[in-house]
Amino acid sequence: MTRTRGERRGDRRGDRKAEIIQAATEVIAERGYRGATLVAVAERVGLTQQGLMHYFPTKDALLVAVLEARDQWDMASAALHGRAWPLEVVAELVEYNATRPGIVQAFTVLVGDSVTEGHPAQDYFRERYARVREGGADALRAEYGDRLPGGLTPERAATLLAAVMDGLQVQWLLDPGSVDMPAAFRDFLALLAPPREPG
Amino acid sequence: MTRTRGERRGDRRGDRKAEIIQAATEVIAERGYRGATLVAVAERVGLTQQGLMHYFPTKDALLVAVLEARDQWDMASAALHGRAWPLEVVAELVEYNATRPGIVQAFTVLVGDSVTEGHPAQDYFRERYARVREGGADALRAEYGDRLPGGLTPERAATLLAAVMDGLQVQWLLDPGSVDMPAAFRDFLALLAPPREPG
Repeated sequence: MTRTRGERRGDRRGDRKAEIIQAATEVIAERGYRGATLVAVAERVGLTQQGLMHYFPTKDALLVAVLEARDQWDMASAALHGRAWPLEVVAELVEYNATRPGIVQAFTVLVGDSVTEGHPAQDYFRERYARVREGGADALRAEYGDRLPGGLTPERAATLLAAVMDGLQVQWLLDPGSVDMPAAFRDFLALLAPPREPG
Repeated sequence: MTRTRGERRGDRRGDRKAEIIQAATEVIAERGYRGATLVAVAERVGLTQQGLMHYFPTKDALLVAVLEARDQWDMASAALHGRAWPLEVVAELVEYNATRPGIVQAFTVLVGDSVTEGHPAQDYFRERYARVREGGADALRAEYGDRLPGGLTPERAATLLAAVMDGLQVQWLLDPGSVDMPAAFRDFLALLAPPREPG
């Protein structure tokens, strides 16, 4: 099937948007959300500010796109391992995160900033954590029933899982030579569901 | 003993500094570090910007004072319970934090911002976490020896302790009605050192 000129233009527009989202993620990671400007993002992709605003009319619109792109990566990563033990999926996500410090840094900056008053990402993060706690609890219940081997209910384990992931990211970003994020996360998983002793 | 006029002036200066640090903590919590200005802090304590700079010549100097004040509160809180079971001391610190959302909010904003490039609090936080991991591991080793009841070494448990505290703060600040921070933290402590079954 031959593609029309319109479709190719659509692809190019999509590529350009992806490129802008990538640049925005880098700029936020480097300068924080308040320090990030549309001009700085535009420069990084060789556009004028006006050119950039053709794709994303405001800084907040760009922020939403950055956050949604991150979720897509997370979901893609989870889908790759769709049939694995649920805690193993999360462990692999943490290992994957350890290979992309820029994204993790942008996320850490944004979530920290989101607790300030009237921040444009505050509702996004409130809903995201509610979703992560609920979805995590469902997956854990499907695997373990109403109580994990370590003694917690799926709901209580899911809250801690999200907390450990976020907290380890901070320590790892500040001091990657001292903090082995994936190993520390596996320590936590072994507390939630201790591996059975052989024999 | 009668106090001299100079001593009284010194007290007043100390009170004023404490008041400025309190105001700065509030402004950072509300607006983020980059959004906080010396003018906004000065207004809150009824000073001009020039008047404020008499106490803290730069925004970074004020930031350092805010961070140091927070450490002093933490140490005072720990000292109050100096001879308790070490995990109980941390649990009580988390309960205390749940009564002071403003401080916790300022801390969350600052630590998130600190991972951006060249942030003035980056060294402070890197060293703080190294200290927390080391001091935590020492206290845990003194109590439990080389292995906690849940199976981790004191070093690995201390890294997770700090991560859980930070991560729960984010979820609690965003959604205090859904996340019981002290209860979730005690869930984690029960994984580190499961209470013994009676009998």
